[in-house]
Amino acid sequence: MQIALLGGTGDIGEGLALRFAYDTDHDVVIGSREATRAETKAREYETELDSRGVEVEVTGQDNAEAAREADVVVLAVPAYHLADTVDAIADELGEHTVLVTPAVGMKRDEDGFHYNRPGAGSVTALAAEAAPEDVPVVGAFHNLPAGRLANLDADLGIDTAIVGDDADAVDTVTRLTEEIEGLRPVDAGPLANAAEIEAITPLLINVAKNNEKMHDLGVRFQ
Amino acid sequence: MQIALLGGTGDIGEGLALRFAYDTDHDVVIGSREATRAETKAREYETELDSRGVEVEVTGQDNAEAAREADVVVLAVPAYHLADTVDAIADELGEHTVLVTPAVGMKRDEDGFHYNRPGAGSVTALAAEAAPEDVPVVGAFHNLPAGRLANLDADLGIDTAIVGDDADAVDTVTRLTEEIEGLRPVDAGPLANAAEIEAITPLLINVAKNNEKMHDLGVRFQ
Repeated sequence: MQIALLGGTGDIGEGLALRFAYDTDHDVVIGSREATRAETKAREYETELDSRGVEVEVTGQDNAEAAREADVVVLAVPAYHLADTVDAIADELGEHTVLVTPAVGMKRDEDGFHYNRPGAGSVTALAAEAAPEDVPVVGAFHNLPAGRLANLDADLGIDTAIVGDDADAVDTVTRLTEEIEGLRPVDAGPLANAAEIEAITPLLINVAKNNEKMHDLGVRFQ
Repeated sequence: MQIALLGGTGDIGEGLALRFAYDTDHDVVIGSREATRAETKAREYETELDSRGVEVEVTGQDNAEAAREADVVVLAVPAYHLADTVDAIADELGEHTVLVTPAVGMKRDEDGFHYNRPGAGSVTALAAEAAPEDVPVVGAFHNLPAGRLANLDADLGIDTAIVGDDADAVDTVTRLTEEIEGLRPVDAGPLANAAEIEAITPLLINVAKNNEKMHDLGVRFQ
């Protein structure tokens, strides 16, 4: 399977790229608005993987090219770039492409971070609205600790809640997630249930800020 | 310390009553709108504790009486009874009483459960608005699995995120929470950060509904 990580040069994108390349046999393509930036990062990831004895090719392309051949396209971009990014790749997507959205909208004030719920109901729903009608959208990877994800020495031991209205697409993302060591996919139902997942991310930041020895947190349902 | 559990006849109230009575040396008082109902439940809890070799007195009173001598008053009532309950006990509260609110507002549709955020910003904020001005309010115990909490054979191994604007009150609730085996308090900052905590409860229900072998879930930040 070919996995395109758009915004794969950013923190969550980097972590997912490294974990998919390290833990699975799937092809990983890094997408960015600038192809050269994607290529540079792809080389960095290859070097990191090579230093751990994993020789794989990681490709870097602009977002549209990265999406073209991909079976799964992960929109690892900030929430405010989500619609633009989907527009830029819309012509490359088909009904067999699964679009995955991990983006969360947050705002910060003197008390801490807060979930910034968009009018669409969730950022995941925003992505679904922006996507071509025949392309299935799945929400996943919303609450991952970027630093630990990108550090292949770090154990995860956490969950990611997955939402989607297309059972096959949810199944594809669930199986991919299971291949990442220490990351457990849990089914949270339809896309309409995304907001409560997204809201966990600002809470994790608040908890990390207010407690010693807790940082770069994920969540586990148990 | 005297802990009053108003709504201590309901599911979360029952679990907290049993855990506080079993794991700590504090006095537990059950409050209900009807004193006789509170007394009946208090006897049930005593019987349950006695069957485990723990001989403690659990008192049952109406809410106002239960709150009168309490150091900590837990409002273990549904969100829609919160303001009424605070009104009914307001004359009994002083600046040294800590008011704890675990209530969450939810709505349900065909997709699942959703967080029903009140205009005040959170149910915790609603409780703070209803409370007399000099009484510190702490949000805690929002995401606890009722069944496991009330089953003293069940391991918890979960967290509860605590919010509050009064450092001493937060400290009191944090220390009490630490005395419950398997329940770790984490500081989530000021009261204004409560909504993201409350939103986890409907998510836990959605996850339990959609995944085999996952039920009566709590949350762990790790």
